[in-house]
Amino acid sequence: MDARLPELLPPVQERPRRVHEAMRHALTSPGKRLRPALTLAVAELLGRPGAAAREPVLDLACAVEMVHACSLVFDDLPAQDDAALRRGRPTVHRAFGEDVAQLAGLALLSRAYAVVAAAGQRLALGRYTVEDMIHHLAEAIGTGGLIGGQALDLHTPPEELDLERLEYIHSHKTGALFIAAGELGAMAVDARRRDLEVITRYAKNLGLAFQISDDLLDVLGTPEVTGKDSHQDAGKVTFVGLLGIEGARTLAAELLDFAVLSLAPLGRRAEVLRQLAVFVRDRGR
Amino acid sequence: MDARLPELLPPVQERPRRVHEAMRHALTSPGKRLRPALTLAVAELLGRPGAAAREPVLDLACAVEMVHACSLVFDDLPAQDDAALRRGRPTVHRAFGEDVAQLAGLALLSRAYAVVAAAGQRLALGRYTVEDMIHHLAEAIGTGGLIGGQALDLHTPPEELDLERLEYIHSHKTGALFIAAGELGAMAVDARRRDLEVITRYAKNLGLAFQISDDLLDVLGTPEVTGKDSHQDAGKVTFVGLLGIEGARTLAAELLDFAVLSLAPLGRRAEVLRQLAVFVRDRGR
Repeated sequence: MDARLPELLPPVQERPRRVHEAMRHALTSPGKRLRPALTLAVAELLGRPGAAAREPVLDLACAVEMVHACSLVFDDLPAQDDAALRRGRPTVHRAFGEDVAQLAGLALLSRAYAVVAAAGQRLALGRYTVEDMIHHLAEAIGTGGLIGGQALDLHTPPEELDLERLEYIHSHKTGALFIAAGELGAMAVDARRRDLEVITRYAKNLGLAFQISDDLLDVLGTPEVTGKDSHQDAGKVTFVGLLGIEGARTLAAELLDFAVLSLAPLGRRAEVLRQLAVFVRDRGR
Repeated sequence: MDARLPELLPPVQERPRRVHEAMRHALTSPGKRLRPALTLAVAELLGRPGAAAREPVLDLACAVEMVHACSLVFDDLPAQDDAALRRGRPTVHRAFGEDVAQLAGLALLSRAYAVVAAAGQRLALGRYTVEDMIHHLAEAIGTGGLIGGQALDLHTPPEELDLERLEYIHSHKTGALFIAAGELGAMAVDARRRDLEVITRYAKNLGLAFQISDDLLDVLGTPEVTGKDSHQDAGKVTFVGLLGIEGARTLAAELLDFAVLSLAPLGRRAEVLRQLAVFVRDRGR
């Protein structure tokens, strides 16, 4: 993944250089790569051995990370969350200016679609088409997905933020791209539709639990650990704010239990996804 | 076009309402629709009679307008051109706030790709694939296209802006999407590759001439005519600034002559594209 991501970007030495540098800064900074890991894990467990190592599958995973990187660039802008630090480095607009950050974010989003289309074409899909892949990705990104979640996060008055609303926000802001990440992995290996549905349910619960673990880390972690501004959520309504630390841990654990339970139809093959759930649980400890 | 554009957007009454309203504001404000008109004109002249009236072809044209609307939303932001007026109405961030404008712009871009993929799938293409369409669109949008043009426009010091550099900027910032608009129309009707190449050359020259006519209008027009802030370009290096009014008119006329000459292989069928060239010439008078 770390080798392939920069290969999918325009060369830094070509114009517009600052935008190309900013794209690289946003995409190749050290992240957990959890979303693309999900794409690869799903492809490996539902496909033939070695499926996740095939270049078009890797490229789909990279496209998911591009979308994620784009969303972080915009979330961090002064007009949105106004963050200075991300993944232990200055946010893109702090390093390159707001205009370049906006253009780099747009370019990452556009590139993600091109990469998905090119990968889909090379995969010789059976049940699914390139259009299906683009459609699932667009659903995850659009106003019914992460853009919608971010909009509500920015515009819901704190006094209206109850648990239901917060779940709605984060199942869109975070969960939707987890779902698309899993689904792209399943479609890449021509998974049966009922297996795809298993992945969708799993990814939805994993994504929300992951967001809760993020809220926990914001309270419990330090910038050295999280790579973000410490206590950036101060004043924001979070799962920890509504439920307390133990309550948030319990909710995350329940969601992860649901996620793992939903894997039953896949049997032992799904072990890697159970491990991903354990990783997310341990993050919030 | 005006009937179809809003149908392709999420309903305003669904959340996030402000983002949905902003998308509509950006997309359905009165514009010339020159880029989508090019898509339809090319489909009609290279396809069977009535080709441009088919819904997937119309949707491709709408997707081109979505990309254009997205680019205007971002161009107008405070960190970029900081414009107050567009198409005779407040710019999106003035009407809805910067954060909503950014999210609406991103949502328009994402939706454009989804619409192209869905339309491509319905068209039962022969020579071309959905991936080809996405690829051509992404080339027009990315750092080798309009994002690259805008980046250089924002970051080239005025003293370095000679005619060559200015042509480079605007052949990317404006020309690239004109090219994609024409190419999508050609691909939609399964045009022969040599006809597609004719359209590419024509659209490239038409797009640059159109940008020059915009520069002329900025000097000669009033906000009532242009719908933009008057003399917004004051202090910016433009074709009019470098060449004077008559020089800019001459260059536009030459580009339009090239555009029309390149249509020769298409014979009389291409009359509608000659008329588009006349429209652009008359704008800068």
